[in-house]
Amino acid sequence: MTTTDLYLRKGADRRLRGGHLWVYSNEVDTGRCPLNQFAPGDVVQVRNAEGRMLGSAYMEPQALICARVFAPGEQAQLDEALFQSRLQSALEAREAIFDRPFYRLAYGDSDLLPGIVIDRFGPYLVVQLNNAGAERYRQPLIDALQAVLSPDGVLLRGDSRARRDSGLVADNEVVLGTVPEQVLLEENGVRFSAPVFSGQKTGWFYDHRMARARLSSWVKGKSVLDVYSYIGGWGIQAGVFGATDVCCLDSSSAALEGVMVNARLNDIADIVSVRQGPAAETMQQMRAEGVSHDVVILDPPAFIQRRKDLKKGIAAYRRINELGLQLLRPGGLLVSGSCSMHLSRADLMTAMQQAAVRAGCQLRVVEQGAQGPDHPIHPAIPETEYLKAIFARRVG
Amino acid sequence: MTTTDLYLRKGADRRLRGGHLWVYSNEVDTGRCPLNQFAPGDVVQVRNAEGRMLGSAYMEPQALICARVFAPGEQAQLDEALFQSRLQSALEAREAIFDRPFYRLAYGDSDLLPGIVIDRFGPYLVVQLNNAGAERYRQPLIDALQAVLSPDGVLLRGDSRARRDSGLVADNEVVLGTVPEQVLLEENGVRFSAPVFSGQKTGWFYDHRMARARLSSWVKGKSVLDVYSYIGGWGIQAGVFGATDVCCLDSSSAALEGVMVNARLNDIADIVSVRQGPAAETMQQMRAEGVSHDVVILDPPAFIQRRKDLKKGIAAYRRINELGLQLLRPGGLLVSGSCSMHLSRADLMTAMQQAAVRAGCQLRVVEQGAQGPDHPIHPAIPETEYLKAIFARRVG
Repeated sequence: MTTTDLYLRKGADRRLRGGHLWVYSNEVDTGRCPLNQFAPGDVVQVRNAEGRMLGSAYMEPQALICARVFAPGEQAQLDEALFQSRLQSALEAREAIFDRPFYRLAYGDSDLLPGIVIDRFGPYLVVQLNNAGAERYRQPLIDALQAVLSPDGVLLRGDSRARRDSGLVADNEVVLGTVPEQVLLEENGVRFSAPVFSGQKTGWFYDHRMARARLSSWVKGKSVLDVYSYIGGWGIQAGVFGATDVCCLDSSSAALEGVMVNARLNDIADIVSVRQGPAAETMQQMRAEGVSHDVVILDPPAFIQRRKDLKKGIAAYRRINELGLQLLRPGGLLVSGSCSMHLSRADLMTAMQQAAVRAGCQLRVVEQGAQGPDHPIHPAIPETEYLKAIFARRVG
Repeated sequence: MTTTDLYLRKGADRRLRGGHLWVYSNEVDTGRCPLNQFAPGDVVQVRNAEGRMLGSAYMEPQALICARVFAPGEQAQLDEALFQSRLQSALEAREAIFDRPFYRLAYGDSDLLPGIVIDRFGPYLVVQLNNAGAERYRQPLIDALQAVLSPDGVLLRGDSRARRDSGLVADNEVVLGTVPEQVLLEENGVRFSAPVFSGQKTGWFYDHRMARARLSSWVKGKSVLDVYSYIGGWGIQAGVFGATDVCCLDSSSAALEGVMVNARLNDIADIVSVRQGPAAETMQQMRAEGVSHDVVILDPPAFIQRRKDLKKGIAAYRRINELGLQLLRPGGLLVSGSCSMHLSRADLMTAMQQAAVRAGCQLRVVEQGAQGPDHPIHPAIPETEYLKAIFARRVG
């Protein structure tokens, strides 16, 4: 393993000194340190132009972010011992706040594990290695997981967008023990079964858990529509929290089968229905049918993947919020989510307001949800914050 | 009562068409409608240059915001019937989410009651009329409060900054029934006694209630420091939620007497202590004494009253967060609040990050608090959003 120095250009150390962990390729003094001398995953000591050590990083020489610091201010190797230490810290932080072993155990940069995401489902772990540098440390990471958690099984989900963009193999692979097709989890006291091989991302989205917990104050005795429901993360919780009826809308029949599995798991199948179809078209159709609900939840996929898509993406958020409002009774609650990192909270609020003007009603924001403690935001790395959930009451 | 038209200049109707409720004096077609023809509180129909009716407003002809819309898109009078209707809507929205009659009943523009704030303490109401226009409608408002809520007493707190800036009388006055010096309230199941005549603002700050509720997940078995404690809103709740010991720090001895009253009210006087002094100096002194805590809460007054004070204000937030971190044990929780409308959430997070760099530690944001349902944000009026509470774990 090489542990050479990576020198930055003069003045290019400002971000790192402020606590950020990324080095962009144009910040490297490539005269002194040609990037083509590095292989993905090579560990380097990042130094400013004056030679001051800023931290240890692994290289991604072909990428725009060409080095990712995993040990700020320290000289360190990326070995099993380091992974054990990082995982232990991450575990302690989760166990301090969650009673049950269901959470995102490792959230990339925020846990000083750049490129690595691990979701925990009791004895099973689902891991994403999102770039070639992290991929190289697969084995010491698995060994460390074994040492710290002794899991029954570890699944490597190899089909993330980040991986595809890096040209990595896109297969799923059980790399330790065995992992069943469906794993059980609990969120806010509600039970779910998640398809960890075939489902979206790691099979489950723990990120909205705090906002979903807040549903309990809003849905009792209410009729709820959950749009982009996936396997019912919001809708099933609404049902358990006392909604009179819940309709889950998704384009995937497999996801909707999952909704009904989860409804039965919580003994609320009698109040849960599903509707398959693309969100916008189906909402329009429901409006034509005269459908309306007391609570409408919109939790779409990221409409904005890249900053250049911001304008088009905002229009898409405005559009689905307008459609959602048309299915919402006056006095009802709109829960509007966004997981687009490039969309600010203020932008989402503006999109909702514009949707309200178009739908001929007014809105008042009554609560706001954000990432929970298992998706910690690193305040020096704005890119670690992406999740918004805005609860707004429809007035008039 | 005059109900003349107020014509805007060409193109100056954009904000109102987007749902905002304020008219600035430079947006008025003063050739057609000289501002000096109006008295504070005169009701007008706001029209764009083409004559389209945008809503009913009351005038504040001497102010930068010279008209405040109270009935968007409608021709309406500011009379007891309108106040009754507004208060009834506001009440329904609160009763839909709060079990007990302790909340902000009316929050200005967001409740279409511009310039009017009403906090409810069971049978007692504390009212702020923050400009000369609203002041003129004191009597129909009181009559409407009587009709809707039959309160035992209504106190007009006349000492707000907004009132002083408007040159209004700065006295407190019981305008209906009787109001005791101290009123009882309940927040998140915790009891408080608040000095509604002599305390800050209306005597109590309901705005942080949702964030304070979240303390329950973080303080069990912990040692807590509550800086700028006032009468213990955060600290006493932390104590009831299971903290082992709570120290409340405030510069006011009257506030600290209130802390001990509230500690006794909840039978936790044995774990609560107080410390009097200016926040920054006292925190420095505590550091010199070797004091440290598991949880440090910073809920300062608004350091930024005007946009021009932003830079100086950010430095003040950075400074107190740095001092707070120096009293926080590694692994502990910093709860950092701001009620400065001009300070964005991102600005606060940056100030906290800079404080962490100076204090030689790292932070991870684990939860975020915002205004609750009794301080609804009007999404067309960014000025209605002012409150932030950022929960961050100290790492290293």
